[in-house]
Amino acid sequence: MALKKKPVTGMNDMLPREMEIRDYVIQMIKDTYRTFGFSAIETPCVEHIENLLSKQGGENEQLIFKILKRGAKLNLETAKTESDLVDGGLRYDLTLPLSRYYANHANELPSPFKALQVGNVWRADRPQRGRYRQFMQCDIDILGEPSNLAEIELILATSTLLGKLDFRHFTIRINDRQILKAMAGYSGFAKESFDEVFIILDKMDKIGPEGVEMELKEAGYKENVVDTYLTLFKEVTNDLEGIHYLKEKLAGYLEPEVAEGLETIISTVEETKEADFAMRFDPTLVRGMSYYTGTIFEISMDEFGGSVGGGGRYDKMIGKFTGQDTPACGFSIGFERIVLLLLESGYQIPTKKEKKAYLIEKGMPSEGVTRILALAKEERAKGYQVLVSNMKKNKKFQKDQLAQDGYTDVKECFVREFAPQGEE
Amino acid sequence: MALKKKPVTGMNDMLPREMEIRDYVIQMIKDTYRTFGFSAIETPCVEHIENLLSKQGGENEQLIFKILKRGAKLNLETAKTESDLVDGGLRYDLTLPLSRYYANHANELPSPFKALQVGNVWRADRPQRGRYRQFMQCDIDILGEPSNLAEIELILATSTLLGKLDFRHFTIRINDRQILKAMAGYSGFAKESFDEVFIILDKMDKIGPEGVEMELKEAGYKENVVDTYLTLFKEVTNDLEGIHYLKEKLAGYLEPEVAEGLETIISTVEETKEADFAMRFDPTLVRGMSYYTGTIFEISMDEFGGSVGGGGRYDKMIGKFTGQDTPACGFSIGFERIVLLLLESGYQIPTKKEKKAYLIEKGMPSEGVTRILALAKEERAKGYQVLVSNMKKNKKFQKDQLAQDGYTDVKECFVREFAPQGEE
Repeated sequence: MALKKKPVTGMNDMLPREMEIRDYVIQMIKDTYRTFGFSAIETPCVEHIENLLSKQGGENEQLIFKILKRGAKLNLETAKTESDLVDGGLRYDLTLPLSRYYANHANELPSPFKALQVGNVWRADRPQRGRYRQFMQCDIDILGEPSNLAEIELILATSTLLGKLDFRHFTIRINDRQILKAMAGYSGFAKESFDEVFIILDKMDKIGPEGVEMELKEAGYKENVVDTYLTLFKEVTNDLEGIHYLKEKLAGYLEPEVAEGLETIISTVEETKEADFAMRFDPTLVRGMSYYTGTIFEISMDEFGGSVGGGGRYDKMIGKFTGQDTPACGFSIGFERIVLLLLESGYQIPTKKEKKAYLIEKGMPSEGVTRILALAKEERAKGYQVLVSNMKKNKKFQKDQLAQDGYTDVKECFVREFAPQGEE
Repeated sequence: MALKKKPVTGMNDMLPREMEIRDYVIQMIKDTYRTFGFSAIETPCVEHIENLLSKQGGENEQLIFKILKRGAKLNLETAKTESDLVDGGLRYDLTLPLSRYYANHANELPSPFKALQVGNVWRADRPQRGRYRQFMQCDIDILGEPSNLAEIELILATSTLLGKLDFRHFTIRINDRQILKAMAGYSGFAKESFDEVFIILDKMDKIGPEGVEMELKEAGYKENVVDTYLTLFKEVTNDLEGIHYLKEKLAGYLEPEVAEGLETIISTVEETKEADFAMRFDPTLVRGMSYYTGTIFEISMDEFGGSVGGGGRYDKMIGKFTGQDTPACGFSIGFERIVLLLLESGYQIPTKKEKKAYLIEKGMPSEGVTRILALAKEERAKGYQVLVSNMKKNKKFQKDQLAQDGYTDVKECFVREFAPQGEE
């Protein structure tokens, strides 16, 4: 029998030190989002394979961990393809299951419904540093709210949370899929090519405007179209003025309400934000998922190259389940990245209570153990973390180890002190 | 495209009311067990199929959700059996993964190691009331502690937790596999038949001593053996006297240390317990899992027919991974049953802060929204749960719904109040 000691490829065992930070962050997430009126919900980790493969997940659909049918439903001899073998899969995100959940339970939920989800998702991606095959996602979504109060509250809640975790000077970049489309349309791209154009535009961060220009031309787009497009990006500033400029420039291609909506979101957030961060209009922001229909946003931090969170409006997904569209907007934070940043910065969880240990000398009669446990009980009732352990032969090693685990107050309990009276 | 609205068979969507209780219980678990020096850890939900099928899990191995191999590793044409198709599965408990984890990380962990795990497990069981295919388990385990300080601390921690959740008058029944074996051996059963005898004995609760007697005789055991066995159970009381009686009666079959260990556990727990419960020696307690090697225990409550938790010592499992036995003892509470009992009793989470709502009249200029959000910010910073929402046409319905969700303080924000000065 060959038992395996390592966890499965790409998934992690969590050691106590990391778990302490994870639990602290999760608690902070739940406490903070609760003050914004979000209600925690949960969906099963296993989702119908039909839902997972319904083209809502883009590339993630290639990465599903699929679950074998069971019992009589599984027939190996007649099975021709994978789909004959499986009936479920592990969820690859929390947005698709939320849409199913809302479609199933809308009658039992308030409207608008502010949902908080903290849970694992799975993607059979190539494992690499900071990217795991099982990872925690943390999403807030507002369902049933068409106005940009949804975006404002999502951004305020998320940024307040990050501020409470001592993140500062981060940026939330915002754009709108309508602006993306209007800029491409104005420049002369055909609607059918928008998706390809946006995939190239999405590389702006990495390859710069010259790179984007080159790739667009290599893809066969007309020079004057590409030039108009890139000139637009050069002329637009990353602030309210930039939005205002586009509102006028793109007249006929962009509904003015879209630009005004963005302006309202940015200015309202700037005026009411709690955390130390900046809003930035970023017309190059694309975000991969095709399900976004309106605003899109993403968090950038100097400490971390990539995004540490993002989201947007997806007004059409719930309709795929119900036949009736429901406005929806969500913000997801990159939980694993945030934990990684905190771990690497040596983050100390604030106001932890002192940890105490009682070491029991060998040969302690049970009356002595009882007295020690009674002492521990008193301190535990006060909220102290109290370890009661047998004293080891190598006491120095034991105490060093305890010190390393944060037990600063170690009491050695000797038989001569704790034995019942008269028996010494 | 046929999207499915219901969750997969046997698994549950959690509505906000249930999640509130679940989150509260989880927090109470983490806080309470932390005071006993337990450290939270986590293993991946996916485990190697070889480990899951290694005969540690008894009947649960029939119930595994298996995960299809991916990419080039999956070859449908050459696959003859299920095992050619799968390389992983969803864990069916937290004990087997803990043993793998400890084998993998013992060098990085303190000794003894006190582990706390809260996590989902999956079993493709027949769904029924209160039994789901995905359910939360909550285990504490002490690894590397051979003395019965482990049992004492596990029982104290678990019962203290239940007490904090307002459970009273419950019973923790305790027995030892060595006593089970000694009673059977003394009566004249052959070692090879112990497992079958214990399976029948396990039904004592349901079929009574007469039923057990009948089934044993039907199974072909000698009348005098069965009679001796049942007489033993009749003579034994469910307390320290009963243990003492067996210690003398079973001399030669039972090491006296085993009986003395049980006596110490019971008397020490009785003297140092925090919660209102009783310890009871129960020589008919079997517990199914074959991996138990010593003490076994189980929580009974009048409110709930079955067990709401249990555990025991399994000193041989970690050795299956490492080749070297490590003493291990664990206690698992039935999280789903506890939540069910709290939900059904209409449990109110103590000291919840008032929930406040601001309803924004239609047409509010953005300066007004900003003022309202600033008010909400102040109250959120104080820890209040504050909902900011647009006022609906049917305001009465909206306010009723808010009241139902616990929003007791609802403020209507009219344009005339919140519009900027001079614009009214």
